[in-house]
Amino acid sequence: MISSKKALNIILNKAKRLGTQTLSLDDALGFVLAADVKARINVPVFDNSAMDGFAVHKENLIGEPLKIIGEVQAGQKAAVKVSKGKAVSIMTGAPVPAGTAAIVPVENVHVEGESLIIRKPVLLGANIRKAGEDIKKGSVVIKAGSLLKPIHLGLAASVGESKLKVYNKPALSLVVTGNEIIEPGKKLLQGQIYDSNSYLIKNLLAELSIDICFFAYSADTLAKTKSVLRKALSKADIVITTGGISVGKYDFLSLALENIGAKCHFNKVNQKPGKPLSFFTYKNKIILCLPGNPVAVATCFELYARPLLLKMSGFSQISRPRIKAVLAQPVKKKKGRASFIRVNLAQKNGRYYAKPTGRQGSGVLTSMVADGVAVLPEGSGDLKKGQFVNVVDLGGEYR
Amino acid sequence: MISSKKALNIILNKAKRLGTQTLSLDDALGFVLAADVKARINVPVFDNSAMDGFAVHKENLIGEPLKIIGEVQAGQKAAVKVSKGKAVSIMTGAPVPAGTAAIVPVENVHVEGESLIIRKPVLLGANIRKAGEDIKKGSVVIKAGSLLKPIHLGLAASVGESKLKVYNKPALSLVVTGNEIIEPGKKLLQGQIYDSNSYLIKNLLAELSIDICFFAYSADTLAKTKSVLRKALSKADIVITTGGISVGKYDFLSLALENIGAKCHFNKVNQKPGKPLSFFTYKNKIILCLPGNPVAVATCFELYARPLLLKMSGFSQISRPRIKAVLAQPVKKKKGRASFIRVNLAQKNGRYYAKPTGRQGSGVLTSMVADGVAVLPEGSGDLKKGQFVNVVDLGGEYR
Repeated sequence: MISSKKALNIILNKAKRLGTQTLSLDDALGFVLAADVKARINVPVFDNSAMDGFAVHKENLIGEPLKIIGEVQAGQKAAVKVSKGKAVSIMTGAPVPAGTAAIVPVENVHVEGESLIIRKPVLLGANIRKAGEDIKKGSVVIKAGSLLKPIHLGLAASVGESKLKVYNKPALSLVVTGNEIIEPGKKLLQGQIYDSNSYLIKNLLAELSIDICFFAYSADTLAKTKSVLRKALSKADIVITTGGISVGKYDFLSLALENIGAKCHFNKVNQKPGKPLSFFTYKNKIILCLPGNPVAVATCFELYARPLLLKMSGFSQISRPRIKAVLAQPVKKKKGRASFIRVNLAQKNGRYYAKPTGRQGSGVLTSMVADGVAVLPEGSGDLKKGQFVNVVDLGGEYR
Repeated sequence: MISSKKALNIILNKAKRLGTQTLSLDDALGFVLAADVKARINVPVFDNSAMDGFAVHKENLIGEPLKIIGEVQAGQKAAVKVSKGKAVSIMTGAPVPAGTAAIVPVENVHVEGESLIIRKPVLLGANIRKAGEDIKKGSVVIKAGSLLKPIHLGLAASVGESKLKVYNKPALSLVVTGNEIIEPGKKLLQGQIYDSNSYLIKNLLAELSIDICFFAYSADTLAKTKSVLRKALSKADIVITTGGISVGKYDFLSLALENIGAKCHFNKVNQKPGKPLSFFTYKNKIILCLPGNPVAVATCFELYARPLLLKMSGFSQISRPRIKAVLAQPVKKKKGRASFIRVNLAQKNGRYYAKPTGRQGSGVLTSMVADGVAVLPEGSGDLKKGQFVNVVDLGGEYR
């Protein structure tokens, strides 16, 4: 059976960036930048005042009386000029007049009519923000490949960009298999269970700014499965399925995929949960088959689907952050198989402690309300309290 | 001057939860649950098979030959009954027939026509998921006050809920002041700068699932400022402003707010960046006035606006996670004033190391492309390399 590490490598090797599009700053959050943003201007554009105060000449940096000869507001040109014995009233952000050596803050002067006395000496250059001090014209402000966050969009705006070239997000189809699955809100008949996987996956995708372009439940017959898969593939760059991939008599997914000409790259992974995880390609399209158990779905989404989708979205840093944490209790583990344990995290004296969230069965969805997933490699056996483990940080509020 | 800690307390004391609404699972991501979700069913609903295999009787757990008398698929009723000497073929997730003591996995049996031989003995109860094993009917599945993440929405679906009662998000107006501010994409005239604050704030709000119900640029005149504020207040639970709040001659925001009857709670905070931060209320509405400098805006949004908005959204855990990190280089700091330093984080042997992102001036927006903000309290002076600092984790990919 293939290892978890090898499975991820095979998946990522098939993941290709898609095309690009140009989006306005209002729509680009969560997309990946496809071309460097270079500053077309200096930031600040011009030398400007960091304070409300008075622009003074280099020979008037201490206490002598000065004559106020004008004013510059933010958004105005600096029409006046500062010379020896003269000061100009200036607002925060306003352009610094020619001849200015420093800005004296308004709190440090005494004004009487048109006359000004500096009460606290000021250093040469004080409170002047120099043109290009933050960003030099022509320099790269945001590198291609960045996942766009609010601060990036603010930065792009500050250099005057209103649109950004970004990588397309993959078009994604979701197929939930299983005769026993019904929608929440409906009445359960005997033998039926509520669909939780599609709600879990839809919302995990929303966090990646990926919409679902085609969704279907598929009953467990070969003909129905093939027809649904054909539709799903026709619309999408990637199809994600849940269930129907195990060795059961009515698990038609593998057969259906082979029947329509998809190529299987692996159909089982040496891990728990998520052993039935399978991976196919069809022409340039990807089919990732998640197991049916909700915990296996949640775990395999985090460890396989998320990096795959981020890579298809053009992002290179495709893994969640990992934390090295100290096990807060012993953990039983079968040697020879990777194991993913859901844990909560606590911080103490700058170290993290990881505690399993309780029963770890693959039907136990409550165990996924967790801060992280501890990745226990194949080679490891039982773990003792106090051992370090690698934890995939799911981005909680635990600290 | 009021301390940063006191300022936050004053703000949070005025933040009240708003009303509630009922949303479908497709729309509830990022909202805060307003009432406990209690399970109306057991999960699993019924005893079911964890494997594809055969249901066997308690007296047939080892190797004797058995007669296969029927089959149960997922989604079907278990119409047949298991008795001594008889086995029933069963699929993963299918209800366990009466009389079943264990499920023998299909990999561990030898089948010939209607006859079955167990090749590997099985323990009593093996591979049966018991009804209520994950969630007991009537138990609380998600607590009121939880910020809804994908896993919660999957959990709600698994107990059959299709809608959830959540707290309303605040209706928010954004007002950007400053004669010098123009929209990105337009040509800069002398003395003008591009608006970055509104793009920064809009996208920070998007991450909190909060829409802007009213947006305006406001020129620096008293009449215009008052009129824009009145409109902003009429539509919103909270108004956020940027700029115009300092001591400058053309900073009309405070005066305008007082003129229209708003109450000032503080108009300056002993911190850097963000000293001009001001806070008003008008009837039951909140007005948070951020400074004009982009770095002060980004920092004050993180430290004040975000907790405020989360509390108004019904969330009690309103702070970003904090990390105790080791300073990777010395930091100069004026004693007697809180200071917020943007840092990048690196992990080594289970410890975090914090390194300032470079020049920390309040116009230096590039310094905000950071993993976190180190909060240096008022009492602290210069800091040495190796000292511990508290870092607000901005949720990056640094680990």
